[in-house]
Amino acid sequence: MFRSSLIFLLFLLAFSTACQTQATTTDEAALRKLDDEWSKAAGSRDVEKTISYYSDDAVVMPPNIPTLTGKEPIRTLWKSMLGSPDFSGGWKATKVEVARSGDLAYVSGTYEFNEKDDSGKPMTDKGKYLEVWKKQADGSWKCVADMFSSDLPVGP
Amino acid sequence: MFRSSLIFLLFLLAFSTACQTQATTTDEAALRKLDDEWSKAAGSRDVEKTISYYSDDAVVMPPNIPTLTGKEPIRTLWKSMLGSPDFSGGWKATKVEVARSGDLAYVSGTYEFNEKDDSGKPMTDKGKYLEVWKKQADGSWKCVADMFSSDLPVGP
Repeated sequence: MFRSSLIFLLFLLAFSTACQTQATTTDEAALRKLDDEWSKAAGSRDVEKTISYYSDDAVVMPPNIPTLTGKEPIRTLWKSMLGSPDFSGGWKATKVEVARSGDLAYVSGTYEFNEKDDSGKPMTDKGKYLEVWKKQADGSWKCVADMFSSDLPVGP
Repeated sequence: MFRSSLIFLLFLLAFSTACQTQATTTDEAALRKLDDEWSKAAGSRDVEKTISYYSDDAVVMPPNIPTLTGKEPIRTLWKSMLGSPDFSGGWKATKVEVARSGDLAYVSGTYEFNEKDDSGKPMTDKGKYLEVWKKQADGSWKCVADMFSSDLPVGP
């Protein structure tokens, strides 16, 4: 009886390790898909859908302004970015890494946004981003920290 | 016999959960301390110590240049930042969050750097940062992704 319990315990341990690896792979794929959908929401200038990927207590850290905390300041930022009818573009994850416990992850990648400047001349911004995602109580992933900056030199 | 094994199993489960919570708290404190030491290394303009906090495959994502990957480009960046004898300052973590599994974490906070501009006039830059840390095979924490940007508006 003791021996069979021990075998059961070892089996349980092996099974739980296998499950964890499987879960990490599944989470990684889920996050790539989410990040892709998020980019499409921004590319189609859907402000409400775009901000739905953030947790309620998320922070966004854009260049040249202090950190924005919570949905309202983040909505205002995205409204100003997506407000222009000339806005298009999106981003693509290059790296997704999930903690073994499947509760925390980060995603990094590159973005390309097209806009028109004040004189109406088309301009393209290219840059990179770093996002931290956290699994919520309901099992969904939300972005809790989002930082991005341009690769281009500061203009004249 | 079966009953005592079950109790043992439940005890093991409770113990392992308690250990995990304890480990997360310990890791959080360790990361705050590391991030503090790291800031002091930069403040004392020690390039080699400063870059020792990065993993070999780390990425640094500064504003207005593309992502830097690996120790050599990161060393060059820090050399140029810490090279000036007028450089001083550092950073302070405001948030540290560790995955339950204790293998992945992120740290965010604010920085303040003092420098002199080309005309010799003292200037202060204030900004924020987002770091992702990963526990290495030897149990040490290393920063795998580091992003920062100024809070100040783009100068004239």
